[in-house]
Amino acid sequence: MKSITLLGSTGSIGTQTLDVVREHPELYKIHGLSCARNTDLLCLQISEFHPEAVSLLSEEAAEKVRREFPDLKIYTGREGLEKLAGDPAADLLVNAVVGMAGLMPTYRAVSAGITIALANKETLVAGGQFIMGAAAEKGVDILPIDSEHSAVFQSLQGSDRKRIRKIILTASGGAFRGCSRQDLEKVTVEQALKNPNWDMGAKVTVDSSTLMNKGFEVAEARWLFDVKPEKIDVVVHPESIIHSMVEYEDRAIIAQLGVPDMRVPINYALGYPDRIPLPIADSLDLIQAAQLNFEKPDTDTFRCLRIAFDALKAGGTYCTALNAADEVLVAAFLKGRIPYLGIQDMLERVMDAHRSGDASDPEEIFRADAESRALTEKLIAERGGAK
Amino acid sequence: MKSITLLGSTGSIGTQTLDVVREHPELYKIHGLSCARNTDLLCLQISEFHPEAVSLLSEEAAEKVRREFPDLKIYTGREGLEKLAGDPAADLLVNAVVGMAGLMPTYRAVSAGITIALANKETLVAGGQFIMGAAAEKGVDILPIDSEHSAVFQSLQGSDRKRIRKIILTASGGAFRGCSRQDLEKVTVEQALKNPNWDMGAKVTVDSSTLMNKGFEVAEARWLFDVKPEKIDVVVHPESIIHSMVEYEDRAIIAQLGVPDMRVPINYALGYPDRIPLPIADSLDLIQAAQLNFEKPDTDTFRCLRIAFDALKAGGTYCTALNAADEVLVAAFLKGRIPYLGIQDMLERVMDAHRSGDASDPEEIFRADAESRALTEKLIAERGGAK
Repeated sequence: MKSITLLGSTGSIGTQTLDVVREHPELYKIHGLSCARNTDLLCLQISEFHPEAVSLLSEEAAEKVRREFPDLKIYTGREGLEKLAGDPAADLLVNAVVGMAGLMPTYRAVSAGITIALANKETLVAGGQFIMGAAAEKGVDILPIDSEHSAVFQSLQGSDRKRIRKIILTASGGAFRGCSRQDLEKVTVEQALKNPNWDMGAKVTVDSSTLMNKGFEVAEARWLFDVKPEKIDVVVHPESIIHSMVEYEDRAIIAQLGVPDMRVPINYALGYPDRIPLPIADSLDLIQAAQLNFEKPDTDTFRCLRIAFDALKAGGTYCTALNAADEVLVAAFLKGRIPYLGIQDMLERVMDAHRSGDASDPEEIFRADAESRALTEKLIAERGGAK
Repeated sequence: MKSITLLGSTGSIGTQTLDVVREHPELYKIHGLSCARNTDLLCLQISEFHPEAVSLLSEEAAEKVRREFPDLKIYTGREGLEKLAGDPAADLLVNAVVGMAGLMPTYRAVSAGITIALANKETLVAGGQFIMGAAAEKGVDILPIDSEHSAVFQSLQGSDRKRIRKIILTASGGAFRGCSRQDLEKVTVEQALKNPNWDMGAKVTVDSSTLMNKGFEVAEARWLFDVKPEKIDVVVHPESIIHSMVEYEDRAIIAQLGVPDMRVPINYALGYPDRIPLPIADSLDLIQAAQLNFEKPDTDTFRCLRIAFDALKAGGTYCTALNAADEVLVAAFLKGRIPYLGIQDMLERVMDAHRSGDASDPEEIFRADAESRALTEKLIAERGGAK
């Protein structure tokens, strides 16, 4: 019986993680759950999965839950979240927190020797060097939940990592694949929130349309699999059937394929190294799929991917700053404060102005994050984007 | 240093095996070589690779080699080939013999505890039950060299075989994909000897065009990976980029891809479990490949594939008989004795008439083989096919 703490249980990855847990009550039990403020759904989850402890962002939200479950251990705030994450009663921490708030909980779990199933991008994009250093020191496994990284991880099983020639991440190309810069000038929030293949949160969907998401995935792959950015390729594959690949020194490529369904990589991370049956997921019918296409990403129009590669190659806290600036810019776009192209245009300016630091030091990571957010806000304000 | 005996060294797989060995003189040395009668090429190979022993089909061929290499140990005939195969001085037997002549050498090597890298189809199609039984008893690994089975084998690394849901073999569809039965009536030998993707011997190229080759591969996969025929699917994939796949119970599919090049699976079998660098092979450029297509095999027109599934499901020596009949029929077609469609039409008649036996008994295997050949010859003669 594997005991799981799930952070971000009311989000897209969180609820799908519980879908997988629900399939196998003989294998998994929930030790802890957390969410920011969706107390209604959290209370339903508590009734169903009977965690030992939960964590909420505010004291007010915690109070609501306490009224329904007076005997439950309830943490609050960032510190509460970190305490829950580091509780060694869990065997596995599923970190599905969105944003920088996910970084320190990962660190606390790593420090407690708990295996991580990681869906929080910031842990590796902003804190990759820091977290992977800590994980190596503690001998803790970090298992990816993201479909691309899970595909790479699956494609690495049974082969020696020193034989990796290239990691090939596939990208759907986003909602605006094939569009020119001129087309992108008119993009609305509604258009940017449509993803052809995957059902994701708003921030990730916009990042997917700008290819920023793929840029972050390149950074994650760099740290997760300890490969240089030069060894990571991105190929646009609109059908999202091949989830990613590894080419080895013997020129063999191993790939993982399937119907796009996040429950498959979640199930793999939960059951690793076993492949627990998942009949709720659909089987891929290649004859029905009929055709898989591949093309080069257009990094002249979608500059975010190139910016991410440059940030990763520059090292230091450049990726931390990139992540912070993008979070502010996407939020500003979603609120109508800046146009769609403002995201990539301002990202370049933030990168140019960034003062890099030691990315193995959490204080420097948070300093870079804060400075980048402040600078981005300043640029938005200068541009006339109302709060 | 791995010591290798290579049977069938002058054929297509044999010469490509030596290409791989040539790349890594620090890893491999050649213990033994064999061929039927191409003494000119064999003598060149002896000069280059300095084997301890060779084997030739006839005393006459052996005499030619003996004149050039008077001190070399030279075996002759079937018995000589078996002795060379079972010589325990080798760590690995690469069996690239074409036809039933390959079966007993595999058995002799298995009995001697030598790992097998298998390119001889008959070992598994005709003798699968017998050979895999012996290999299990001796704890000997049988590593596939065929590109499809190597792809499956690679896709099985790091996952538990009890979690296999389906093995998906890809098929180029052969030279006549999309043709109707009427189109096939006029097929010439020259047309049947063209394969769009792979460079192979005449027999295999014809078998590839009739889909008989894919049928044999289904039988090989059944024995090699110990799965029921119902769990093996065939998907036509004209580009031959995805070499085959495994679907697991968790609905994840693992696949092996690459530029069609037999040296890649040969290199994998030789270096297993390591992936030895193979810079002589081309790296796959998916963006250049641009598109991968998949379709259902047309088993109404290309009945050989269906016949093979039926033979495999029937069990006993049906596949042995099928293999024997096909060998006789393809030879007859290549000599212009029967038309192209005569192959599949007569195969069905041989299958209907076959008297099955115990496929774990080598005597029964050779009995079924001989009876099937005799019956097929009789049918060809009745049909008026001149010798």
